[in-house]
Amino acid sequence: MSSSGNCHKVRLLIDYLKIPHEWIETDPRYGATKTAEFRQMNPNAHVPVVQLEDRTYLPESNAILYYLAQGSSFWPADKLSQARVLQWMFFEQYDHEPRIAVNRSIQSITNTLAERRAEHEANLPKGYRALGVMEDHLRTNEWFGAEQVSIADIALYAYTHVADEGGFSLADFPRIRAWLGRMEAIPGHTRMRL
Amino acid sequence: MSSSGNCHKVRLLIDYLKIPHEWIETDPRYGATKTAEFRQMNPNAHVPVVQLEDRTYLPESNAILYYLAQGSSFWPADKLSQARVLQWMFFEQYDHEPRIAVNRSIQSITNTLAERRAEHEANLPKGYRALGVMEDHLRTNEWFGAEQVSIADIALYAYTHVADEGGFSLADFPRIRAWLGRMEAIPGHTRMRL
Repeated sequence: MSSSGNCHKVRLLIDYLKIPHEWIETDPRYGATKTAEFRQMNPNAHVPVVQLEDRTYLPESNAILYYLAQGSSFWPADKLSQARVLQWMFFEQYDHEPRIAVNRSIQSITNTLAERRAEHEANLPKGYRALGVMEDHLRTNEWFGAEQVSIADIALYAYTHVADEGGFSLADFPRIRAWLGRMEAIPGHTRMRL
Repeated sequence: MSSSGNCHKVRLLIDYLKIPHEWIETDPRYGATKTAEFRQMNPNAHVPVVQLEDRTYLPESNAILYYLAQGSSFWPADKLSQARVLQWMFFEQYDHEPRIAVNRSIQSITNTLAERRAEHEANLPKGYRALGVMEDHLRTNEWFGAEQVSIADIALYAYTHVADEGGFSLADFPRIRAWLGRMEAIPGHTRMRL
């Protein structure tokens, strides 16, 4: 689904690396990931899922990024940098996505703000806490995880650059805004479409 | 904290691999991860965090597993198996831990079931859904991620083997129970202490 940040992560990397692919649009809002056919591809019933050259399927956006980035500059060479890239990708799935992406889904994707206002409000301080951890990291680092742009930056860019669509303002996060600008200067970059 | 599954993941791997270490007990229930001193080690204020040989700190349980498993049989050699190991580790942090570990924390660690009953109840079907995805995978696979035991199994073992402490019964998950038994047969294995 093109308006899913988890799918957009994959789009960013395949665009940066110019990986030939076919993009098949799948909209979970209308049950497309709950069918028996889709569950054959991903029993966990989430997008994105990629079909590889050998026709096997690989789900989980951040695992797909790992696979596609091998041999490119988006996956660093040394073990500690690799672990730090994964550190930020696990942070993204545990501390960032469940607040910032979920509020965007409530407010701008599924339009369920009226019935999920308490959840949306509870997510705001938790999402701002995650943004604070990112802003703090950028005081002394240009990128997340490695000395140069990596799949950790792609994973975190996906929902951060549309945080406003979930009610999060980046006004007090100048370093995050500057980092988003560095991401958007990479040749081949595309923003997400709503 | 020895009763944290995220910390127990690290203990399991260092015990299996006999990695020399010093274990420093830190209890988030009493604010120990919120101090300025702890935030120097992990600005995200979670346990576990390891200090490496060069004195730098690495947080995020699953990133620590990645780092420590390099060069061992717990990290597979081929790219697709590696991606599948990470696939299950991201599943663990996104779909499994927030339901199964959180309910255990509510019910058995922080003892806040009275005031968090609605959250606990909402987590039950989501946690059972995650357990169902695992049970389904074990129909045709002995392990998660690779052909042999890997850090994906360690990550998933941590909170699954104490799921009952969060109100989840494994009675209807015979394949998960058999897999837990395979994990517990590995030399050096330890169960978590409450």
